[in-house]
Amino acid sequence: MQSTAGEILDLERYTTEVATAAQSASRVLSTVEGALKNRWLRRAAERIREKTPEIVAANQLDVQAAPGFGLNAAAIDRLTLTPSRLLSVAEALEQIAMLTDPVGEVIEGSIRPNGLRVARVRAPLGVVFFIYESRPNVTVDAAAICVKSGNAVILRGGKEAFHSNQVLHRVLSDALVEVGLPRDCVQLVSTTDRQAVGHFLRMSDKISVTIPRGGKSLIERVAAEARMPVIKHFDGICHVYVDRLADQAMAREIVVNSKCQRPGVCNAAECLLVHAEIAAEFLPAVGRDLVARGVELRCCARSHVLLPGSRLATEEDFHTEFLDLIMAVRVVEDLEQAITHIDSHSSHHTDAIVTNDLQAAERFLAAVDSSAVMVNASTRFNDGGELGLGAEIGISTDKFHARGPCGLRELTTYKYMVRGSGQIRS
Amino acid sequence: MQSTAGEILDLERYTTEVATAAQSASRVLSTVEGALKNRWLRRAAERIREKTPEIVAANQLDVQAAPGFGLNAAAIDRLTLTPSRLLSVAEALEQIAMLTDPVGEVIEGSIRPNGLRVARVRAPLGVVFFIYESRPNVTVDAAAICVKSGNAVILRGGKEAFHSNQVLHRVLSDALVEVGLPRDCVQLVSTTDRQAVGHFLRMSDKISVTIPRGGKSLIERVAAEARMPVIKHFDGICHVYVDRLADQAMAREIVVNSKCQRPGVCNAAECLLVHAEIAAEFLPAVGRDLVARGVELRCCARSHVLLPGSRLATEEDFHTEFLDLIMAVRVVEDLEQAITHIDSHSSHHTDAIVTNDLQAAERFLAAVDSSAVMVNASTRFNDGGELGLGAEIGISTDKFHARGPCGLRELTTYKYMVRGSGQIRS
Repeated sequence: MQSTAGEILDLERYTTEVATAAQSASRVLSTVEGALKNRWLRRAAERIREKTPEIVAANQLDVQAAPGFGLNAAAIDRLTLTPSRLLSVAEALEQIAMLTDPVGEVIEGSIRPNGLRVARVRAPLGVVFFIYESRPNVTVDAAAICVKSGNAVILRGGKEAFHSNQVLHRVLSDALVEVGLPRDCVQLVSTTDRQAVGHFLRMSDKISVTIPRGGKSLIERVAAEARMPVIKHFDGICHVYVDRLADQAMAREIVVNSKCQRPGVCNAAECLLVHAEIAAEFLPAVGRDLVARGVELRCCARSHVLLPGSRLATEEDFHTEFLDLIMAVRVVEDLEQAITHIDSHSSHHTDAIVTNDLQAAERFLAAVDSSAVMVNASTRFNDGGELGLGAEIGISTDKFHARGPCGLRELTTYKYMVRGSGQIRS
Repeated sequence: MQSTAGEILDLERYTTEVATAAQSASRVLSTVEGALKNRWLRRAAERIREKTPEIVAANQLDVQAAPGFGLNAAAIDRLTLTPSRLLSVAEALEQIAMLTDPVGEVIEGSIRPNGLRVARVRAPLGVVFFIYESRPNVTVDAAAICVKSGNAVILRGGKEAFHSNQVLHRVLSDALVEVGLPRDCVQLVSTTDRQAVGHFLRMSDKISVTIPRGGKSLIERVAAEARMPVIKHFDGICHVYVDRLADQAMAREIVVNSKCQRPGVCNAAECLLVHAEIAAEFLPAVGRDLVARGVELRCCARSHVLLPGSRLATEEDFHTEFLDLIMAVRVVEDLEQAITHIDSHSSHHTDAIVTNDLQAAERFLAAVDSSAVMVNASTRFNDGGELGLGAEIGISTDKFHARGPCGLRELTTYKYMVRGSGQIRS
């Protein structure tokens, strides 16, 4: 796998040029008016509608090559761009244009006793390096979110979507030039050589943040190699805890929705915890609901007895992100045992309690250390759109900088603007 | 320098025990009432007053050993604790007790169309690993800021302050136990073996953030080795730009204050930029002010001519944090050249413009990408106390998570608290 020295030198030069161009573009972009960024978003949406046949044709090349890359039917479906899906992509751009510009937002401000007027003001991060896999609509979404938040972006898509990404990138950059923004605000890495990624990950002087979106091994590699901050999106091992005083009909709906509405995503629930006092009544009922939807139940000894046809769970099952119609089930003595279980088993993504006990709800909200903590609602609501962020580039499982859905605001920093009238320090 | 395997194993066990205890303590601390944390701060202040003779005696051991560690007179002065300095340390604790608790602050909240009540709420980060050098009062400040913001802290002080830190730490932890908080909320690493630091830096599952405060080599080592986020405090290469329409009397005061009020700190100015149109009038005047205060001027060719007795600057001088009575001087054609110079030479810590031209001020504020951008004020105001943060654990030169002064709020994350009434996703 060792490349020759010549190839490495070329890659190094190429990646340096891309990052330098991104940095220059970001300097222009950081101070342009919001209206110009919105004009780009709307123009890009129009161009996607105009160029739909061309985009679909390029996408077909990727779809035809997909089995050769080992993609299964579900992955090929996610890769496929149809005219109606492209309409949604264009609409998403227009929706992002309507969101409030985060740049320049005064987060807070005050006048100091010496008369200095201090404002903490939102500013772009600079350059985002975004690494992602198959779905080509992400190319457009990510570019839109980065540019709207004032950042230049370097997109590194997967080889499976190579042709689709090329044509979508051309549409986006032609629209940039058309409205008078630097073309290099959005760059697509033109090689899928994995060593190029390594070069970018060392450029902490030019790239402000790297966002990997894909499998765990990709994220781990990026986190280990990157010399700049990384926003990581790891596992979602999410819990629903049904408390003693839960409305049991509501609890059944929330458990079923959290598990089954879209089992393959990170905010789907993987584990059900039930208070011992209601287990004998609640578990058989919710068990029937879940089994009717094809869910396999992997149970602790106490819940296993109450759920005929279920299998005994291993300890490993309580640490697993199934992403499938499988659910671990455990009976807990009380709220505190539920919190302790979640503390040691949750991936701190999303955890929910179903209860009508106000003290229990407040204790759960305060003690559970996850990006979203839900009371009487499905775990599936931990999502940028559902929580009101408008658009998201991923869901962070980090606690630093961005936690949970990562929208426009999460791609910004802030600076202190201090206005005086000659103040000096004594 | 290779230790034996036995010693490495012991260090690994020791550091793991410390980090595990910190994590347990942080879980308790994260949900205690603010009043309890404030009671600890006030009790610790009282104990410092009570134990002043004991603390001063321990400090004297460090002061006596200091020449052996190569500390110069200024460093020994910073190391020394006198009764009056300890009074200030105790008062600082009482001031931190009066600050608003950041934990639980509702940053924003709204009701979604489906009735979900969404709140973004401040929460502690967890465990802070704080590495610092000589000044023992930092032991108390850092512990206070971390605990007040709901975080457990692992303190790793320098060998020069070993005895002082031991006794101060005992005072702080006795006060923790006295008010009913876990003793392990504040731990002091009992070895100054540098390998212990390496062990801690790998524990990203237990330590949420590492904050190194000290020389550049320390920060670089920590940034390279840490597997968790690091809040870095690098150089302050700060600029004052005097614009064409500046009030020149004000400009002279701001330049002198920025350079001379405390030349050894990060927010002191290192470079003066002057608009070409006023250079012939302004430079000789400000030059006299600076030279009268013992400042050595290192000038570009154009300013050199206007400043008799100055020396010609090298390119390196414009990239240097002097931390001394030395100032680089350059004449620029206009505002844009000043911005370009700052963009390529500043460490993005603090940069100031002196001008009465509103458009120039606004352009400078928007275009200069530094943690604090000042208009008509000294660079020395980029400081937690001066900007109204109340207390700070350092000044971040990063753009990610915390930028500029790092106070209570900067040691927190947030989580989404979502309160529903049975909502599920369709």
